[in-house]
Amino acid sequence: MNSIEIIKDELDELETKLKEFVRSDIPLATEISQYIVSSGGKRIRPTLCILTAKALFYKGKELIDLSAAIELLHTATLIHDDVVDESLVRRGKDSVQVRWSDAHGVLVGDFVYSKAFQLMAGLKEKRLIEELSNSTNKISEGEVLQLSLKAKPNFSEKEYFEVIGRKTAELFKASVVTACILSKANEKVLKSLERFSYNLGIAFQIRDDLLDYVGKEDKIGKKLGKDFEEGKITLPIVRAIELSNEEEEKFLKDNLSERNMKNFDQTLDLIINSGAIDKVKEDEDRFVRECLNELEILSPSKFKDALIGITKGLLNRNS
Amino acid sequence: MNSIEIIKDELDELETKLKEFVRSDIPLATEISQYIVSSGGKRIRPTLCILTAKALFYKGKELIDLSAAIELLHTATLIHDDVVDESLVRRGKDSVQVRWSDAHGVLVGDFVYSKAFQLMAGLKEKRLIEELSNSTNKISEGEVLQLSLKAKPNFSEKEYFEVIGRKTAELFKASVVTACILSKANEKVLKSLERFSYNLGIAFQIRDDLLDYVGKEDKIGKKLGKDFEEGKITLPIVRAIELSNEEEEKFLKDNLSERNMKNFDQTLDLIINSGAIDKVKEDEDRFVRECLNELEILSPSKFKDALIGITKGLLNRNS
Repeated sequence: MNSIEIIKDELDELETKLKEFVRSDIPLATEISQYIVSSGGKRIRPTLCILTAKALFYKGKELIDLSAAIELLHTATLIHDDVVDESLVRRGKDSVQVRWSDAHGVLVGDFVYSKAFQLMAGLKEKRLIEELSNSTNKISEGEVLQLSLKAKPNFSEKEYFEVIGRKTAELFKASVVTACILSKANEKVLKSLERFSYNLGIAFQIRDDLLDYVGKEDKIGKKLGKDFEEGKITLPIVRAIELSNEEEEKFLKDNLSERNMKNFDQTLDLIINSGAIDKVKEDEDRFVRECLNELEILSPSKFKDALIGITKGLLNRNS
Repeated sequence: MNSIEIIKDELDELETKLKEFVRSDIPLATEISQYIVSSGGKRIRPTLCILTAKALFYKGKELIDLSAAIELLHTATLIHDDVVDESLVRRGKDSVQVRWSDAHGVLVGDFVYSKAFQLMAGLKEKRLIEELSNSTNKISEGEVLQLSLKAKPNFSEKEYFEVIGRKTAELFKASVVTACILSKANEKVLKSLERFSYNLGIAFQIRDDLLDYVGKEDKIGKKLGKDFEEGKITLPIVRAIELSNEEEEKFLKDNLSERNMKNFDQTLDLIINSGAIDKVKEDEDRFVRECLNELEILSPSKFKDALIGITKGLLNRNS
């Protein structure tokens, strides 16, 4: 994802903008925000935003501000997620609340949100602000929904897609839809690319949830089985339960509800032997194919090709 | 503050708007937000916003949305404050993280923020959105500044005013300045009322910090000495240290840095006997007089009178 050479200048500008814009009169706010902003990350949302605008021939000056606002929104949710999930590691480094404290995580997360909103508020077109504020609302709904489902013993496929739709796909969608608005795309193009980006977000999250079980720890930058340990039911579990007999189902549910990591090797064997991993890959594949179909609406360009490349790359990504 | 009869209709509309607008497809988000939104509160920021707009002859339709956005911003910061401060009680009821959990506090706080931003994004004039997003940023800076000062043994008057300026006065200011923008007030009126509202916020917070030492627990809805217990240095302590001899200063600083409540009665005696309480009341009085001067720019009306009444009422408020 980092090697998108055709928008290298824009991505470099974005990095500078992110680092400069979180500067504050309060040194601690600058220090922590720059720590998290500079710790890498794939910048997939800004990349989608920039590529879409370029594919739609946008020539204006608001692209960096818009994509920086989107990345800061995402960053703020990560900081709060890490507090809530008690995550130790983010992007291969100590998470904010490990390096500082929970209080720092909550308050600097709010600071980064406020910086995102300042960038949003500076955008000329009000429709962009509305789109992003609606997206922010959906994301926070997704977080609350996920929290409310944690206590629930039976968790359906439908609920899984509701959570990841809000938590992940909404901001993928907003990244692309705002690029369409900025580029004054017609409604037909906008609707196609809205479906493209929403489905891409879904496919992206499915892959993320898959990597939590079958990824390489050094690649994903966090411990395997973290979702399981947090009692988060994701698609590999949903599919494994569907494909298991009564006894196996009980084993999975019991260990999950107790967040029992002692039997994690056995759990993992059970998930793999059930065929759940292959089934999840099929799910992902289906969403990716829908994405590729929707991209057909774009006229040929190297930016379109890059969007296709990102979409296909999802299927092979291991971090 | 609740008995502002001349804007009773608007305040009733505000209550309905607040309660309805935090409704969500996610039942838990609705439940917790309505719990906190319906638990009272003085609504002083919306009251200032509404009275200012009325005093400036505003007749449009955006006043309830604007003042609801402001109250929701305030509510979101309260929810996160309670998580960070581990507060047990808010407005006489269990705080969100006591009734639910820290995670609920963080995520529902974000949800309420997002609702505030949705309301803001819907306002016609972009300058309103910019003003409110800048204010949100200052508030979060104030929170981080306060956190960074907690560890500091020497805390100056200047730092105290920087914290409360950002944490409290900024949103008082935004409540009144946005009302001026909405009412198309001229720049001179806007600047006067900006000073009025900022100083009112300062006076309000000074009184709040005073009540933490000399208030009545049943009136303020929380335990006395809470700031002290959290290691928060507020004006009563700043003044008491100024007015104490070396030995007393050491006693105050030692107990504060250890957050030692066993000697709180002795601490309180020391603060009172030093003359700090009277000195703080003088500080407050000075800000209130400045507020009253700035209000002179308004032409006579019952709304102006109400603003004067609120300002004077601050000096006697005990909750």
